[in-house]
Amino acid sequence: MSDSATTTNTDETYEEFLQRVERRHNVGAAAGVLRWDQEVMMPEGGTTARSGQLSALSAIGHELLTDEEMAEWIETLRDADLDDERTAVLREVGREYDRATSVPTDLVEEMSAATSEAHPQWTEAKEESEFETFALALERLVELNREYAEHIDPNRPAYEVLFEEYEPYLGLETADRVLTELREGLVPLIEDVRESDVELASPFDGEYPANDQEELARTVLDELDYDWEHGRLDTAPHPFSTGTQFDARVTTRFDESEPIGALSSTVHEFGHARYTQGLPKEQYGTPLGQSRDLTVHESQSRFWENHVGRSRNFCERLVPLIQDHLPGTEDLSTEALYEAANEVYEDNLIRVEADELTYHLHIVARYEIEREMIGGDLDVQEVPAAWNDTYEEYLGIRPENDAEGCLQDIHWSHGSFGYFPTYSLGSVLAAQIDAAMRDDLDVDGLVADGEFGPIREWLREEIHQHGARYTTGELIERATGEPLTAEYFLDYVESKYSDLYDL
Amino acid sequence: MSDSATTTNTDETYEEFLQRVERRHNVGAAAGVLRWDQEVMMPEGGTTARSGQLSALSAIGHELLTDEEMAEWIETLRDADLDDERTAVLREVGREYDRATSVPTDLVEEMSAATSEAHPQWTEAKEESEFETFALALERLVELNREYAEHIDPNRPAYEVLFEEYEPYLGLETADRVLTELREGLVPLIEDVRESDVELASPFDGEYPANDQEELARTVLDELDYDWEHGRLDTAPHPFSTGTQFDARVTTRFDESEPIGALSSTVHEFGHARYTQGLPKEQYGTPLGQSRDLTVHESQSRFWENHVGRSRNFCERLVPLIQDHLPGTEDLSTEALYEAANEVYEDNLIRVEADELTYHLHIVARYEIEREMIGGDLDVQEVPAAWNDTYEEYLGIRPENDAEGCLQDIHWSHGSFGYFPTYSLGSVLAAQIDAAMRDDLDVDGLVADGEFGPIREWLREEIHQHGARYTTGELIERATGEPLTAEYFLDYVESKYSDLYDL
Repeated sequence: MSDSATTTNTDETYEEFLQRVERRHNVGAAAGVLRWDQEVMMPEGGTTARSGQLSALSAIGHELLTDEEMAEWIETLRDADLDDERTAVLREVGREYDRATSVPTDLVEEMSAATSEAHPQWTEAKEESEFETFALALERLVELNREYAEHIDPNRPAYEVLFEEYEPYLGLETADRVLTELREGLVPLIEDVRESDVELASPFDGEYPANDQEELARTVLDELDYDWEHGRLDTAPHPFSTGTQFDARVTTRFDESEPIGALSSTVHEFGHARYTQGLPKEQYGTPLGQSRDLTVHESQSRFWENHVGRSRNFCERLVPLIQDHLPGTEDLSTEALYEAANEVYEDNLIRVEADELTYHLHIVARYEIEREMIGGDLDVQEVPAAWNDTYEEYLGIRPENDAEGCLQDIHWSHGSFGYFPTYSLGSVLAAQIDAAMRDDLDVDGLVADGEFGPIREWLREEIHQHGARYTTGELIERATGEPLTAEYFLDYVESKYSDLYDL
Repeated sequence: MSDSATTTNTDETYEEFLQRVERRHNVGAAAGVLRWDQEVMMPEGGTTARSGQLSALSAIGHELLTDEEMAEWIETLRDADLDDERTAVLREVGREYDRATSVPTDLVEEMSAATSEAHPQWTEAKEESEFETFALALERLVELNREYAEHIDPNRPAYEVLFEEYEPYLGLETADRVLTELREGLVPLIEDVRESDVELASPFDGEYPANDQEELARTVLDELDYDWEHGRLDTAPHPFSTGTQFDARVTTRFDESEPIGALSSTVHEFGHARYTQGLPKEQYGTPLGQSRDLTVHESQSRFWENHVGRSRNFCERLVPLIQDHLPGTEDLSTEALYEAANEVYEDNLIRVEADELTYHLHIVARYEIEREMIGGDLDVQEVPAAWNDTYEEYLGIRPENDAEGCLQDIHWSHGSFGYFPTYSLGSVLAAQIDAAMRDDLDVDGLVADGEFGPIREWLREEIHQHGARYTTGELIERATGEPLTAEYFLDYVESKYSDLYDL
């Protein structure tokens, strides 16, 4: 066979393969719309039908990834000489293919059934604050996940393999290093904050109607130049962002006694949506038009939430917007808003309500516990005690019950183990990106002037436009010039909190 | 092989077949959610991705219906001895299978491409009121639809075959008979109305904010006991209803100078949604849990819109609700509302704005024109003139341009020929159902008392609970005791309009 015939065959195979990849992506994106609808729009009684629809799409997506045609295309293409772009697409799809085909269908179904059973048990356990109610289901999920990981790679610790579901390329070693740096840096810093005489307090003590807060959230999104032609804002019980580069939606929620939560969650979700909207449109349907997993996604939300949103200059821009929308805020000052947005909550036990500083000890605690639990070094029955001890050690506070302790988060009930670290990795990366951006841009000056265009453009250029073309590590090094490190994050919080708390 | 072994095999085959049918239904229902979202929620820029998602689901649905496994199951089951329920499921799925497999994939793709091209041309033609801009695309769609019909049944006229896409069982002969009865009955009645000295006028001459109208629409849906746990109300440019028995949603739109339009469209869509909500939940995913096509669906919407909604007693219930919600309606009387809701618009050229009486001549006109066009007796180029002549003959009015003439409706640009008759068949069936219901219930008294429960229950019992178990004709005969006839509709309008217009 001549060289050109081989090329033609490869081209044809790649074309067929790519069409399949695109179809599968479309099925996944359709499921994304259905899940958005379920959280935001669906009437309560719609659950039965919606579950059926989502199961069907999930099964179809699995078949589109794992059937014989796909196996042949991937085998052929792995032997072919592909350009960089095709190599990247094949790497991403091939990775998913390998994982999906190494796990027996029976196990996948068993896991899906166990998760469906576990979720209501967790809900009940949390309501009753009774870990026992969830313990058996959790044990079962732990066992099944160990088995799952063993099918994928019997030669590595199960937790390492599970972590790669959420962050495929950085490696657990990197996560462990970063989380250790965070723990070592943050535990003493938080102690110093505790011992400081400074007490920051919220200036918000009134009632702030949800409607007013929603108008404010829209104005803030306008200020950041959120692309409304490719997105929308709604309310949801747990804020999230979802969609594609053509339609990246955000949600938030409103606490009528406290407006900062909705503001920061809106800016956080904006960061996620901005990433999604910045993915190349012409690559829709392929990995080159998809985001680079959870670490990078979280870096985008945290960059906007913390490095822009919690800055003094952004607070200065926010004050008149808040005054325009929320009653009784005529006397709000920039400094008061800045302090409230950065207050360290000394006795908060709940991760999703944590401040920027203590947040990571919530993550470290979960990481250590779930790693031991999956590794078999911690019995499921011992989780509540281990949880409470860890909180006491790292944060100096002890949960009084399981609802505010080890039952607070939904992730385990979904059978997700290894997800939590990506939250901290994302924050750490956000600080590293912020530092790299400051080599090119006067970020403070731009935020002060409300000129977010160059910031968005920097992120698009360095991160968004690449989709999943590069592995996480490659993308980080290209954008920031060095591998992931907690150094920038620790510098950033030490400087900010020393100033705020007179340390 | 023993009898019991055969039975077991049949059971297994049926089970596999049914799982496939359910999966395909779920894919279709997912597409329904995506289309709802597209009309109601999606940001403008989402179109490209949404088209990709809908195409993928449509192709997958087609494959799930037509692949080799399905072919074998259907063949096996057609030879087996099935109970009534299974026979009905097989009849419905088999009918779709036969149609889908008789048309070559190339032609389906060609039709899909031609429709995608035709739609913007129709939009442009309508905007410019220039039929020429759409003529070529329409000719192409007509040709492709003829070809399509010939693949399905080369021995019958194409229009007859196309009509069965929308109403599979009644037969074009029945439609033709009913439409002829309507034309013969309505043309003289409308002439009498025209000659009457009575002039009905709307009491609404103010501004009625959309928000107030929306609250009113919600109150009216409450009054009818719309099941909000399994549905929701939104606004859309063209009102529609969609969903499943678990989640049947309605939409409406608001004209701030005229509140009756939104009220009647809300009650109309309520009728559709009520049918969907009344389908048996335990049969979700099978034809026994799906509605009986367009004639019966339209009968449900028209029953509520016209026989309940436009009745004097319902108007009496509406008056205080309107007064509660709309400014400047303190002096509104039942009689004024009743007259406004039933006014015959003498010079209206637009189908979707037509009154209950002239509406059917709009349908008869389209039916005659598209039947001749598909049959080759009317050249596409001659459509505008034929349209205008027909309107002049039947309605005594002549469109001044194509935008208010033959370009007004979207259906042809979607490649839908044969859809229109079902609108009139549905109205006629609504009157027949109304008459049958009156044998069992004091409908007027119940409406006067706001007791809609027995009416809803009658419809559920006689129509909704059966899904697509019976053919259209069987269902009509079971519910009303006789085949479809225009007699009841003509009696109803003659009596109502004689009274209103002193004929």
